[in-house]
Amino acid sequence: MTVDRIYQLIQEDLAQIEDRLRSVREVVFPFQAELLDYSLQGGGKRVRPALTLLAGKLYDYDPGSILPMAVAVELMHTATLVHDDAIDHSPVRRGRPTVNQLWGEETAVLLGDYLFAKAGELATDTGNLHVVRLFTRTLQSISSGEINQSFHAFNLAQTRQQYIERISLKTASLFALATESGAILSHAPPRSVEVLREYGFNLGIAFQIVDDILDFISTEEEMGKPIGSDLTQGTLTLPAMFVLERYLEDNPVKTLFENRGGQDNIRQALELVRNSAIVQECYNVASDYSVRACRNLDLLPDTVSRRALAEIADYVVKRKN
Amino acid sequence: MTVDRIYQLIQEDLAQIEDRLRSVREVVFPFQAELLDYSLQGGGKRVRPALTLLAGKLYDYDPGSILPMAVAVELMHTATLVHDDAIDHSPVRRGRPTVNQLWGEETAVLLGDYLFAKAGELATDTGNLHVVRLFTRTLQSISSGEINQSFHAFNLAQTRQQYIERISLKTASLFALATESGAILSHAPPRSVEVLREYGFNLGIAFQIVDDILDFISTEEEMGKPIGSDLTQGTLTLPAMFVLERYLEDNPVKTLFENRGGQDNIRQALELVRNSAIVQECYNVASDYSVRACRNLDLLPDTVSRRALAEIADYVVKRKN
Repeated sequence: MTVDRIYQLIQEDLAQIEDRLRSVREVVFPFQAELLDYSLQGGGKRVRPALTLLAGKLYDYDPGSILPMAVAVELMHTATLVHDDAIDHSPVRRGRPTVNQLWGEETAVLLGDYLFAKAGELATDTGNLHVVRLFTRTLQSISSGEINQSFHAFNLAQTRQQYIERISLKTASLFALATESGAILSHAPPRSVEVLREYGFNLGIAFQIVDDILDFISTEEEMGKPIGSDLTQGTLTLPAMFVLERYLEDNPVKTLFENRGGQDNIRQALELVRNSAIVQECYNVASDYSVRACRNLDLLPDTVSRRALAEIADYVVKRKN
Repeated sequence: MTVDRIYQLIQEDLAQIEDRLRSVREVVFPFQAELLDYSLQGGGKRVRPALTLLAGKLYDYDPGSILPMAVAVELMHTATLVHDDAIDHSPVRRGRPTVNQLWGEETAVLLGDYLFAKAGELATDTGNLHVVRLFTRTLQSISSGEINQSFHAFNLAQTRQQYIERISLKTASLFALATESGAILSHAPPRSVEVLREYGFNLGIAFQIVDDILDFISTEEEMGKPIGSDLTQGTLTLPAMFVLERYLEDNPVKTLFENRGGQDNIRQALELVRNSAIVQECYNVASDYSVRACRNLDLLPDTVSRRALAEIADYVVKRKN
């Protein structure tokens, strides 16, 4: 099954999600409508809502609750991107100027707040308090992970375990919410809810590791944003950790972090990773998590949705952007 | 009844709210705990949670739902202050350096996000989905009001109606949530829920107008933050609107807004307001809303809580900080 085939499977529901995202833009103030319009059009792949839909379709699919939840998950994701870009002063995302670049960091903060709140309202539209609670806990995890990342900027003394903990909080928690909420809202049995939560969580870790690899080996054109941005921000990701472990002398990551910057060091670090086995080793770690994601999928009903989830786990460690 | 007497009435519940606020600080990362500790200690008057408690005590008071909601309201308020200070680059609040001043605007944005999420979880602790929905809508109102305010910075062409709409969104909505949620969670009859919502809403408008007056006539010592900050930000508040209407030549507000700044203009505008009838006229507008807040209080049970609400409405138009 290809990714295109997966999107075909759920294309009607995804179209409804786009409709609902469009209706989020219908607000009183024209300026706010313009901001919402811009931020929700960004051409994302809608991976997280797709996961909610697929998890929901394994059991008693209820569009009345699954669709608002899928939209809530996408809005929460968008809000975190808007805030992250403001915090990192990033000028470009997905090949377009960021909200903070066009309207200022102040406006980006307020727009993100509005999107979080709207996401929260859509989560309440599910009518399921347990899911709303998971939603609020996920946002706590994401912001805790980001606070942690910001605190450890340019800190060389970080373990791989700390890295995994951090990306669990900032990325995997939202993937886990996407699948777990889909399972709960379609009345999956408790063991299946747990399997789908674990699937989302491990998939999220794999996804973030690949993101962190691509920040070293991709191109600005493919990623739609500058390469090496993690190093610029002083964020120690898996490829940089490998560089630190492997090169004891003249280490560009060490020099970069000690000096809290330096374009030359970034260029050298990217070169080093691209021309070494580090890329493959990082992909191996990502693949481990992708395999872990699928470990218990055979406990779920053998449907086209289950095969789609397995395919997505395979895809995230192959993707190029 | 004095304000001290009102706080005595609810002191045991307020002590429990302080306990719960302290437990919000118990998180895994020491740095995050430090941030929470600092932001939740700020010495606020806890006006909003007090309103939730008093509204709740008029009917079938249920501490199991009222207390978490009162904490949720205070956390949402704290989160908005943390974000506002970051957006305005404010160095001081309540006589202490702001979070953005001590740890940077980036950290302040993330801390505010965490506080919003934690507030949302406490709102779900009420077990009442309707109240959770009101909570998410309130945050939409607040951020919409702030987006609107930021969009109209240094815009002279604003009507008094636009001003009232803006402060309704950014301030009165949270006061309305405080009282309405207290009423709903104590199973008040629908008409009383409406009366308490209207009370909170009008009280919030009066409160904000007085805040806007104090930004002209108070001192940095009394307010714990610089005076004239609204003018510095280009926010057109009621006293500045009066200045614009009254002085057709050499108007310091007009010059300030046209030049997008100027310490001299700010000083002149403050002088003009302080030495004119404008202060009293603004207080008259605030008093109108305070009276409106109390208009239907006689439809509520004649208890000490109801008298306390009337007293608070009187207090907000007399307060000095």
